Amino acid sequence: MQKLEIKAINTDIQRWLAVAADNVRQHLSEQLQVQTKSGRNDLVTKFDKVTERFFVEQIRQNFPHDKIVSEEGFGDQVHNMQGRVWFIDPIDGTLNFVRQRHNFAMMLALYENGHNVIGYILDVMSGDLLWGGPEIGLYLNEKAITKPDNKKLAAGLFGVNGPMFAYNKENIQEIALASSGARILGSAGLEFYQVVLGRQVGYASRLAPWDFAAGKILAETAGLSVTTIDGRPINMLKSQVVLATTHRAFAEIQKMRQA
Amino acid sequence: MQKLEIKAINTDIQRWLAVAADNVRQHLSEQLQVQTKSGRNDLVTKFDKVTERFFVEQIRQNFPHDKIVSEEGFGDQVHNMQGRVWFIDPIDGTLNFVRQRHNFAMMLALYENGHNVIGYILDVMSGDLLWGGPEIGLYLNEKAITKPDNKKLAAGLFGVNGPMFAYNKENIQEIALASSGARILGSAGLEFYQVVLGRQVGYASRLAPWDFAAGKILAETAGLSVTTIDGRPINMLKSQVVLATTHRAFAEIQKMRQA
Repeated sequence: MQKLEIKAINTDIQRWLAVAADNVRQHLSEQLQVQTKSGRNDLVTKFDKVTERFFVEQIRQNFPHDKIVSEEGFGDQVHNMQGRVWFIDPIDGTLNFVRQRHNFAMMLALYENGHNVIGYILDVMSGDLLWGGPEIGLYLNEKAITKPDNKKLAAGLFGVNGPMFAYNKENIQEIALASSGARILGSAGLEFYQVVLGRQVGYASRLAPWDFAAGKILAETAGLSVTTIDGRPINMLKSQVVLATTHRAFAEIQKMRQA
Repeated sequence: MQKLEIKAINTDIQRWLAVAADNVRQHLSEQLQVQTKSGRNDLVTKFDKVTERFFVEQIRQNFPHDKIVSEEGFGDQVHNMQGRVWFIDPIDGTLNFVRQRHNFAMMLALYENGHNVIGYILDVMSGDLLWGGPEIGLYLNEKAITKPDNKKLAAGLFGVNGPMFAYNKENIQEIALASSGARILGSAGLEFYQVVLGRQVGYASRLAPWDFAAGKILAETAGLSVTTIDGRPINMLKSQVVLATTHRAFAEIQKMRQA
């Protein structure tokens, strides 16, 4: 896609995000009707559904030929990355949303023929929006941001998933303890946000496509590495353990895993 | 202390906090001269020292007979809780401060003859100040806040310390995994903040007096339980594993520990 076209789409997307976030913030004090999905801590609320449906409607109206991968089932069955593919995570960090009414994100991402186009992570309660892509650069709200330093693992904090850390899945304790310290934020979007802004040296977690699609575009635009935990390319259409980190820390982690 | 006297002191303290936080925020882009203390992730910067010295000076000028317990050595050798005792944590979450320039707190607390008087947790970068005590109530900035619900463990998120969680010290994995989910924020102040606001059902970590003194006052004012991990009263003058949680979760945790 051309830069001009991306800029036009960006204007649309930012407007959708503002509307969706306002809607959630306005109804935040309401009693939530929380449903469980795969287990007692895999939750969904009407806000996940309403927000996803809103984004799906906007995309269908404006870009009827595009495909949509989304968390709550309003999107399409997408079998390949040909053409334009959108990824929607209406409320990322649903547990935080339900338990805290804080520390959750909305995420949107657009790919074309498998290539990064543009990604968005909106910290709904602070209102801060991290967005960008390879053609247009990286922004926090209105401000262009610089790429983070290529730090080594010991020079930064490392975000992990709670159960993976407790059970030491993928030897993730060794990685996190070799960093300055482990952090668990409970939202993939907010973890990618920290990594892209250079506040964490990396993040690893088992994630679904809508959890990592926006973060991958932003992190790669920021010059970071985004792969599976064992260093292979990401498959955009399945769940996997994703590693987003600096290139130096990536090399250290792969060395640790092969040791 | 009388309510009127506490209110007068509160005005002073809030002014000191504003001055100290402004100073840190204004110099945030400077290169930090980071020194290690007990290990590679136990750090101190000139900001810890400058900020602590500033608070100590204010207290000495205004309340020359009071005693001071503080992290970086500008306070007193305090052997008992008789009279008025202040606790200062100039930069809580120093690792976050150094690695992120975000997610750190300033904390002040005042006790009289071992009793809670008033405590302050300032999230420096957001500017949000959680403060209060048994005589004057609980506030987030200017707004009085309500006490959190007496939730059970499974109904909320639980904050832990990274290494304790990884190494399952004090069986903390069992506790955190029985909650909705573990969180690691890297700042005792910001963990207490979440618990007092009802965004986490509890928090446990090995802490020094300056790490828990303000949080204890705020949490107890909020109707929460603050004890050692095995349910004994806090010793205000030593490091220990502290558990701050709802009374319902406290009972569940003690039952788990005795099982």
